[in-house]
Amino acid sequence: MKLKDLVEKNRSYRRFARHDQVSAETLRSLAGMAGKSASAQNLQPLAYIIVHTPEGTDRVFPHLKWAGYLKDWDGPGPGEQPPAYIIVLHDTTVHTAAHLLWCDLGLACQNILLGAVEQGLGGCLIGSADRKALGAALSIDPRYEILLVIALGKPAETVVLDEIEQGGDIRYYRDSSGIHHVPKRKLCDIIIGEQ
Amino acid sequence: MKLKDLVEKNRSYRRFARHDQVSAETLRSLAGMAGKSASAQNLQPLAYIIVHTPEGTDRVFPHLKWAGYLKDWDGPGPGEQPPAYIIVLHDTTVHTAAHLLWCDLGLACQNILLGAVEQGLGGCLIGSADRKALGAALSIDPRYEILLVIALGKPAETVVLDEIEQGGDIRYYRDSSGIHHVPKRKLCDIIIGEQ
Repeated sequence: MKLKDLVEKNRSYRRFARHDQVSAETLRSLAGMAGKSASAQNLQPLAYIIVHTPEGTDRVFPHLKWAGYLKDWDGPGPGEQPPAYIIVLHDTTVHTAAHLLWCDLGLACQNILLGAVEQGLGGCLIGSADRKALGAALSIDPRYEILLVIALGKPAETVVLDEIEQGGDIRYYRDSSGIHHVPKRKLCDIIIGEQ
Repeated sequence: MKLKDLVEKNRSYRRFARHDQVSAETLRSLAGMAGKSASAQNLQPLAYIIVHTPEGTDRVFPHLKWAGYLKDWDGPGPGEQPPAYIIVLHDTTVHTAAHLLWCDLGLACQNILLGAVEQGLGGCLIGSADRKALGAALSIDPRYEILLVIALGKPAETVVLDEIEQGGDIRYYRDSSGIHHVPKRKLCDIIIGEQ
């Protein structure tokens, strides 16, 4: 698939086919691509936990918060919960500036998300989590700090992009057919100069 | 090309075929892919300036610093300088937390870098720049803050990945044949758990 198509299909999916499991091998290959992304000063401060068993995912799910803009939706129901996760961590023995750490994180996550799409999967970056409880549930060594949780699985919802005018409302919403709409700025509004 | 191959070929290139120009259209399409990446709370705080003319690139180049670990190399020579740049900015009228901004930045930059590789180009994220002087040289509205500069062009160097043992030296180096080596952690060292 062309990258442009992967990028188009790489939407934040929040409802999944819970029983279509994702193999450990798939998750390892996605983490492998994350590990080959650029890293500021090549420090490589990121580490990963892969979660793919029903027991494992049941330990993760209760500590996540979903879709801040959808006020009347509490998150995916039992049959829609993610069948897999990659938890992205900071190995705190690797010292780096916070902004560079989070840039590294974005670079690595994008490889994971695009790789997931290529395999017919989809994902969602979840930054809103009870990190302390999640760390305890997974018995994560305190050397590692949880940065983001990537929910992964076969998407069970339709997500579309809508162009917005400058100053338009950027809040995503779900229409009456259950289609999730994401307003995105126009190219002419984000390219602000050319030389 | 499979994403795995794009990821492998997406190295940080610092020497380019200066006279192989990159079209404005190519840069616009790369910025377009950046604009379709995920954004925390969908705020979309990023904006872009594309630079592709010899005059434009001559304005950018003097304000960049290159390859901190290569102490005896001052940056690309006249025939090796990047023929294009995308400058990634924060539109400061869009308020967001710093760590989320830099994560968004990483997600967007990875689309640009992978898109460049797909087109036979390569890039380098440059965080070390005299932002004040660069902003003045390009007459950037103070509403926009420079986050990173992405150098782009047809690579004129070979970059290879070497696996390192745990605790090994992560500093990249150039060997006697001019090949640039980047030590990367092994997959078994970055996946620290499986559930």
